[in-house]
Amino acid sequence: MREDDLLSHVYRRSSDLERAFPWVEAGPGDDCAVVRVGQPRVLLKTDQLVEGRHFVPGTPVAMFARKAVTRPLSDLAAAAGRPLAALGAVVLPPAWRGERANELFDALARTAREFSCPLVGGDIAMAEHGPLVLTISIVGEPHATRGPVGRRGALAGDGLYVTGRIGGSFGEGGLGRHLTFEPRLPEARALADALGERLHAMMDLSDGLGIDAGRLARASGVRIEVDASAIPLAPGVAGLERAIRDGEDYELLFAACGEVPSVLAGTPVTRIGRVVAGSGAVLVTAGGAVEVSGQGWDHGAR
Amino acid sequence: MREDDLLSHVYRRSSDLERAFPWVEAGPGDDCAVVRVGQPRVLLKTDQLVEGRHFVPGTPVAMFARKAVTRPLSDLAAAAGRPLAALGAVVLPPAWRGERANELFDALARTAREFSCPLVGGDIAMAEHGPLVLTISIVGEPHATRGPVGRRGALAGDGLYVTGRIGGSFGEGGLGRHLTFEPRLPEARALADALGERLHAMMDLSDGLGIDAGRLARASGVRIEVDASAIPLAPGVAGLERAIRDGEDYELLFAACGEVPSVLAGTPVTRIGRVVAGSGAVLVTAGGAVEVSGQGWDHGAR
Repeated sequence: MREDDLLSHVYRRSSDLERAFPWVEAGPGDDCAVVRVGQPRVLLKTDQLVEGRHFVPGTPVAMFARKAVTRPLSDLAAAAGRPLAALGAVVLPPAWRGERANELFDALARTAREFSCPLVGGDIAMAEHGPLVLTISIVGEPHATRGPVGRRGALAGDGLYVTGRIGGSFGEGGLGRHLTFEPRLPEARALADALGERLHAMMDLSDGLGIDAGRLARASGVRIEVDASAIPLAPGVAGLERAIRDGEDYELLFAACGEVPSVLAGTPVTRIGRVVAGSGAVLVTAGGAVEVSGQGWDHGAR
Repeated sequence: MREDDLLSHVYRRSSDLERAFPWVEAGPGDDCAVVRVGQPRVLLKTDQLVEGRHFVPGTPVAMFARKAVTRPLSDLAAAAGRPLAALGAVVLPPAWRGERANELFDALARTAREFSCPLVGGDIAMAEHGPLVLTISIVGEPHATRGPVGRRGALAGDGLYVTGRIGGSFGEGGLGRHLTFEPRLPEARALADALGERLHAMMDLSDGLGIDAGRLARASGVRIEVDASAIPLAPGVAGLERAIRDGEDYELLFAACGEVPSVLAGTPVTRIGRVVAGSGAVLVTAGGAVEVSGQGWDHGAR
């Protein structure tokens, strides 16, 4: 199958894009896509999904294609942003040509539409060997009043919170929550609505609570204390270690002062610790405090 | 080398980004980058560079890293846009870890800065096998008065023009102009300044004049006639066929009515044909007209 045949399929499927998403002025088919923005700044994120690293071979197309789109959307949620549009780039090894490629592009486009983040452009490259690679880049708008939320604003005295439940995302046989999670876009928006400037710093949990809390602490120049007994474990997750290390939770971790809602857009919110002066991230148990900022899933090292 | 070590290098190198490019509000280090926009719409483009397909193994890092950034910038030029920011995603096979990876990231960042399109975010993924893959996504602003230029506006009666000289871009041993070309950003801007609405349609020549003229004709619903004797061949390119088929010229092909400058930002502009009613793209020679819209370099089929 030639590149133009694959592209024709994409163009046909995208023909209603400007009608369905009125802020899309030009979708696939031109050298650049054109997207209208309603605010004076945009949020940008790119994320890759590599076969064998971010999903096990044999995972159904619809599941890993969904993850390719929801991963960067989770980062957009962490900034309290609203999605506008996505670009999709795919490297196809020989096993992924022809109809399988069309099935993959359709699955990407379907998920992108589901989150009002239509695929407005992309690139297809063939490779003679190596894994399937999906790269999704997204553009979004910051929250209208709170603006973009980053990792840098946590202050000593803040409470530390997490949405949902964590640990065990890989599941049985690799088909767990790391594929099916919901990016916390409505939760983040509701949080920014409710807290405004009291929402000091936020990120999504991708590499494990240990590593990620360490990053939040470093970016903000503070110390984070997590209470072991407060961590909301996902069903079936027995040990705390799993919650700290497993990664790929795609829940929001945030630091805020004052009252925080206990439910956001239907998702529970749990206070799991506090921000204090100092550095590092520690897990506080009955036996003392253990540094955990080095504990998690390093996607690079594996 | 762990992902965090590679990232630390990126963050250190990016620490002056907000100062050097005042429209960058948050660069690498947060879940999303934040970029200020001066117009109510943005231009978006993503492009991949795959080792062994878009450059031969052994090509110096600085050369192929440059191409990874200049390719999507060439598409932005085709829309007459101005670059704002880039995202870089890289898949590193085992041979590309450690210091080589840092060298690569530095080369990407250097080129991006050179074109005032700073890398504000990215993603690093490791692969156990397969080629090096670089995916650059860019955000730009349309021309302030002409707006975004696409492929759809060519009208019967327009002249057809090309910047620079074409053919033979692969060069000797694969180290030719396809690596060293200048994206025609200043030329496109000068053209939009000079012609305004008279600039009807534009694209960049990436897959060969034959295929690309065919795409312009199809997008606009017109027929394109190229005069064989008018095509400006690159030095050393003997036959017309090379100009039609070689691809990767990264020159601008555009349709316009009325007077067109013969030089744009120091680059010659040549009238190579015309737009007429009908469909397809033909090469007109003394012997007649030959359909060429199927002739070029299909990056997918190879």
